[in-house]
Formats: sequence, C-alpha cells, structure tokens
Amino acid sequence: MKQVKISEAVVRRLPIYLHVLNELLRSEVQTVSSQDLGQKLDLNPAQIRKDLAYFGEFGRKGIGYDVSYLIEKIRHILKLDQPLNVGLIGAGNLGHALCNYNTYIKDNMKIVAVFDAHPSKIGTRINSMTVQPIENLKRTVDELQIRIGIITVPAAEAQNVADRLVQAGVEGILNFAPAILKVQGDVRIHHADFTTELLSLAYYLENGADRNEETVD
Amino acid sequence: MKQVKISEAVVRRLPIYLHVLNELLRSEVQTVSSQDLGQKLDLNPAQIRKDLAYFGEFGRKGIGYDVSYLIEKIRHILKLDQPLNVGLIGAGNLGHALCNYNTYIKDNMKIVAVFDAHPSKIGTRINSMTVQPIENLKRTVDELQIRIGIITVPAAEAQNVADRLVQAGVEGILNFAPAILKVQGDVRIHHADFTTELLSLAYYLENGADRNEETVD
Repeated sequence: MKQVKISEAVVRRLPIYLHVLNELLRSEVQTVSSQDLGQKLDLNPAQIRKDLAYFGEFGRKGIGYDVSYLIEKIRHILKLDQPLNVGLIGAGNLGHALCNYNTYIKDNMKIVAVFDAHPSKIGTRINSMTVQPIENLKRTVDELQIRIGIITVPAAEAQNVADRLVQAGVEGILNFAPAILKVQGDVRIHHADFTTELLSLAYYLENGADRNEETVD
Repeated sequence: MKQVKISEAVVRRLPIYLHVLNELLRSEVQTVSSQDLGQKLDLNPAQIRKDLAYFGEFGRKGIGYDVSYLIEKIRHILKLDQPLNVGLIGAGNLGHALCNYNTYIKDNMKIVAVFDAHPSKIGTRINSMTVQPIENLKRTVDELQIRIGIITVPAAEAQNVADRLVQAGVEGILNFAPAILKVQGDVRIHHADFTTELLSLAYYLENGADRNEETVD
C-alpha cells in the first residue's frame, strides 16, 4: 500500500471513530454501517467512508465494517499497537485531571512520569506516580524513553518548560498553557487551549440563523 | 458590511490572534505586520491577511495592523464586548483547573456557577463560587442567564448532564468528558477531548519524513 499523508482533520477524527467503535465492541456489536457511525457522530456517512478508505478497503457493501477489524486497523494507524511513553510537567489541577485520563487512554500510550518545579508538589503522589523535580527531566526522559511531553504549568513558565523538553529529547509537545510557544528543530507542538474552544463556541451562539449568511473559507 | 459565515478553522484562529495581540499590547507594541504575526504563530502571513480580511480592511500596506484597533475588532467579532455567562458541571480536578482559567479569560465571558451531583463536593468553594447541587441547575441558569454549559463529569454521567443542560435552556455545551453526546434541538455542542489531541500528536511522531508521502484531503 502506498503511504499517504492524511489531512489533520482526518487524523483528528480517527480517535473519535476509535472511541465509538470501542463502545460498540463493548456492546458486542460486530458490524456497523457508515450510516450508523454517521448517526452516532453527527457526521456525513460519505465523509466517514472517505476517511476510512484512505487506509484500505475495510468495509463491505450491504454489511458494513467489521468492528474488531476496524479497531485493529485504526489502532495500527494511530500506532497504539506499540508503547508510547508520555511525561507531564505541572502537577496542578489540570495535571491531576490528565493523569486520571490514563485509565481511559489505556492502550500503550501512557503518562509514565510527572514533574514539577515547586517544592510543595515534589514528592507528592498522583495515582501510582511520585512527582519528580523538573531537574530530573532529561534523565527520566532517557530512562523511560519518553517521546511526548505534556505542559500543564502556568503560562509564564511554559516556554522554559518547552525548552527543557526539547533539550531532553522529546519528539512532540502537547501544550495546555495559554501561551504561544516556540520550539526549535523537528519537535512537533500541538496547542490544547480551553479558551479557544470556549470562544469559538460563543462565536456560533451569537451568529444567529437570521443573519444574511454567505459561506467563505 | 455583508455578514459572512466564517469557516470553523478561521473561527478557531481568532482567539489565538487575540491572545498574541494582547501580549503585544502589554509590551506596548502599537502596530504589527502580518509577517510578524506569522512568525510568532508559525502561520503563513498570507493566511493571516486572508483571515482578517473577512472582517473588513484593518491593515495598512507598509505599516501593518493597529494592535488596539485589531483587538477591539476581534473582541467584537467574538462577542467579547458583551457579557456571556458560563456554568460548569463537575467540580473535580478538571473543573477546578477550568475555573482557574477565569482570570485568563477575563473579558465578559465568565464561569459564574459550578454544579456537582456528589454530596462531598456540594457546598465546597472554588475561587469565589460555592458548588451547587445539580438540582439547582435550571433555576440558576435562568437567574444568571447562563448561555453555555461546560461538562467536566465522568463519561458515564455526561449524557445525563447534557440532557439537563438542554432542559435548563443553555445554547451551547463544551464537553470535556470522553463520551460522544447527543443533544436535541438547536444546542451547539463542541467536544474538547484530551485524548484526541494526544493521539493525533502521536500520529505525527510516528509518521517519519522518510515515508513516501502523498497528500490527500
């Protein structure tokens, strides 16, 4: 199969497909049509078929997709069939909340270490992990082969933490701090900012249907 | 000016522009070029000019954008120049973290009430708010004219909370629970799922540059 570069929009939908498929599996559903998936996800069935067709021919006309097989394929595409260790910096409320997601993420992707710069946090426990001083970052990243760093520190400290993560050798950063960060080299950074979601939701509330609308892109 | 429907991608970039512009304002920068903005945000300057041009002619050739004026315009577009009250359901770690963002969001959009179903949470304080029983939801939504609800409860409780929010009369829901929710009627729902970000970031790490890539959309 020829490797293709998939658009970001499709990559973002794959975890959502996986989530619904896992729910179906738990309900012992064995096959699912693109119509059913579309109904569950408020997505156009044609869009779903197009998304999944990038990865090969999984569906069968009139029968639909084999749930287990599709889960296996998406897990493979998202590389969930191999271990991927994640480190988290910032043991505040958000850091705790994300560590609690570990049980949800299950699979092979796991937060395996938590760091903080503040003496009051260092040595405390989050689930089965002990919060480490930020000075341990590089050593622990090496030891545990951590490839992704999650930043949950205040905005003012976020760039410093990002620099440390890059120096420590991570390949990707997920930033929750409300700050625009710059990273050097090949490190990929994704921003997960609550306020972006909240503000864009508000935009739609106010844009009433009574407006004279014209779609632009 | 003719009203246009702006694509979701543009709407999501506006809060990010606003964030950088506010930083520039604090540094007493008065004008900024699309090149400077592009450099700060790792975005193509032509993309930025195109985004901002939807809302009118703000920039001047060779000078750039007036920072204060652009802030005012984006705030107006995002309706931040009028109050918008938000309620949050789920007073756990994530709920706390989001309430702490209130100071960041400042402006007129504010979390004004927090609810929980569990007796151990009800009556506790988060910043200046007292956690209310979920049974108060409709009354408080009416009293405080809450238009957006944020869901930070466990996945298993999320659909029930979404139904209650719709019944209470909110217009938009931001869901942080790892569950696919269905809402009736005109209520708009946005999903903010950590794992989606994390899994899509992982996808890019593994997709090495040595692949034979072909872009599809």
